[in-house]
Amino acid sequence: MANHEFFDAGDVALQSGAVLPATRIAYRTHGRLNAARDNAIVYPTHYSGTHDSNAWAIGPGMALDPEVYFIVVPNMLGNGLSSSPSNTGAPHDGPRFPAVTVRDNVILQHRLVTERFGVDTVALVTGHSMGAQQTFQWGALFPEMVQRIAPFCGSARTSRHNWLFLEGCKSALLADAAFAGGDYAAPPILGIRAFARVYAGWAWSQTFFRQQLDRERLGQSSLEAFLAQAWEPSFQAHDANNLLAMLATWQAADISADPRFDGDLPKALAAVTAKAIVMPCRTDLYFPPEDSEIEVAQMPNAELRIIPSVWGHMAGGGINPEDAMFINAALKDLLAR
Amino acid sequence: MANHEFFDAGDVALQSGAVLPATRIAYRTHGRLNAARDNAIVYPTHYSGTHDSNAWAIGPGMALDPEVYFIVVPNMLGNGLSSSPSNTGAPHDGPRFPAVTVRDNVILQHRLVTERFGVDTVALVTGHSMGAQQTFQWGALFPEMVQRIAPFCGSARTSRHNWLFLEGCKSALLADAAFAGGDYAAPPILGIRAFARVYAGWAWSQTFFRQQLDRERLGQSSLEAFLAQAWEPSFQAHDANNLLAMLATWQAADISADPRFDGDLPKALAAVTAKAIVMPCRTDLYFPPEDSEIEVAQMPNAELRIIPSVWGHMAGGGINPEDAMFINAALKDLLAR
Repeated sequence: MANHEFFDAGDVALQSGAVLPATRIAYRTHGRLNAARDNAIVYPTHYSGTHDSNAWAIGPGMALDPEVYFIVVPNMLGNGLSSSPSNTGAPHDGPRFPAVTVRDNVILQHRLVTERFGVDTVALVTGHSMGAQQTFQWGALFPEMVQRIAPFCGSARTSRHNWLFLEGCKSALLADAAFAGGDYAAPPILGIRAFARVYAGWAWSQTFFRQQLDRERLGQSSLEAFLAQAWEPSFQAHDANNLLAMLATWQAADISADPRFDGDLPKALAAVTAKAIVMPCRTDLYFPPEDSEIEVAQMPNAELRIIPSVWGHMAGGGINPEDAMFINAALKDLLAR
Repeated sequence: MANHEFFDAGDVALQSGAVLPATRIAYRTHGRLNAARDNAIVYPTHYSGTHDSNAWAIGPGMALDPEVYFIVVPNMLGNGLSSSPSNTGAPHDGPRFPAVTVRDNVILQHRLVTERFGVDTVALVTGHSMGAQQTFQWGALFPEMVQRIAPFCGSARTSRHNWLFLEGCKSALLADAAFAGGDYAAPPILGIRAFARVYAGWAWSQTFFRQQLDRERLGQSSLEAFLAQAWEPSFQAHDANNLLAMLATWQAADISADPRFDGDLPKALAAVTAKAIVMPCRTDLYFPPEDSEIEVAQMPNAELRIIPSVWGHMAGGGINPEDAMFINAALKDLLAR
């Protein structure tokens, strides 16, 4: 049962110069916009996630309380619900889907909240991972509109090492000849399986596995069982071209890729004037806390608050209650400022 | 020009119960065995390396001084010089090559130094990565014979996270249908390329790439150039079955997999009575220093000495002079004890 709606944005000129016709953003809302139209929160999705992946952080009594806030969860381009290789017609279907950027996503999200809902101030933008990258992008693009940002387990620009991790995942998928340059008749199962297995080593921390939390907390009898029965199926559920489209967006993420900043990341970070709490996880292997520390030092109103977890990048996924509560508490603190 | 010799070990009963016929160990020696036959050093090779990969640590004035010591560098089974899938005849050729363990390697190395050279005491065993795993294995198997061990960037047992990293590399190679279950007519180029790209994200640290040391120190214009022109070719030089055979040895590495220890790693570590300096690199992503710290705490005569480098696992590869000198100094300290 679909619990989302669509915003039809028409033909969209992308950052690359290409035009994506009949672009749609799938989104879900929680709560109601108040009369002053000042209670909106934007909470973009992470890699391979949908609005449902964000539901853990939303609820009565939580920081993202739908009885208080109007929470808009826009799906990222390429995720299979918003315009994606898998749901776009020729000549932009499959591997011909144009490259989209984090900036393209955020400009569409801005149109969604302004054109559809008449919102001209946003109380908070928050998100996990690529959702955090979209959060930074909101802060850099719309500093007058965004009051607060809380990116967790993400960065304003994809680091070179993070790019390399993603390149490994991509190469594993492309090693499967069944991918056929993106024009596959049936899903490239071996390639997606390899993609998933490569990704698995990065998603948690070394300590997570040393402490056997995969057994205790994910309920799997062995690493092999976990990979085969839980982790691989979660990626097999995705279209391969969609996975690669979102991956390309991630690899290119950079708030300074903007005429106003001309690739100058410190200048772009200085433009993020919103009150911010930036939350890396202490053990995140691809968005390590050092990167966040460097970015926070260049932001005028930002606090660094490191998630003290061994769950690595997955600390931001809402699976581990301690981490979820840590993030929730930070969001409450920030919303109270 | 070959600079190595062979030790023919005949038909060898492996730890698995299988028999590998006409097993050969390729090795190189440096220096001369003294009259007392007490100046031998064993320095096994690392994953995908050969005796030449170890040459950086050997030389006049270095800790491993061939004017003082008799240094034996045995090549690991599966590396293409010692018995390997690529050089073994039917019915043990290619993917039919039996699984070999670190223990199998060390028992053969023990036969090499005792049967060929009449050595009954070893001044030092040292090695990088899987070479370190063989070093730990020497210490556990032959405590009366081994006076000192200096494993660097390695562990006594492959951690679960390390296993997972390797599983990702393996899956990337197996995603290439040209691998054909190991009976390929031509090398599975796409698969080995993917294997290399996956591996690249793990070999250094996040900080290494943040500081752009790949550009400054490896002399590459971009990450893509580095991958395509240097890193991939170094793996393309290897036979795919050989890469997988050594990987299986690595995934299964465990000094406690021995009837004396019955899987009890603390018991096995307690049996390593040699004077030891264990050197993880502070930023190693798959042999992290925490694992070494735990192992050292269970060894009776071991010192933990962390390599203070951002080169990650490659700190032990001899490329970075600071790290090479750090290791060399530790080896000198240990040999003086």
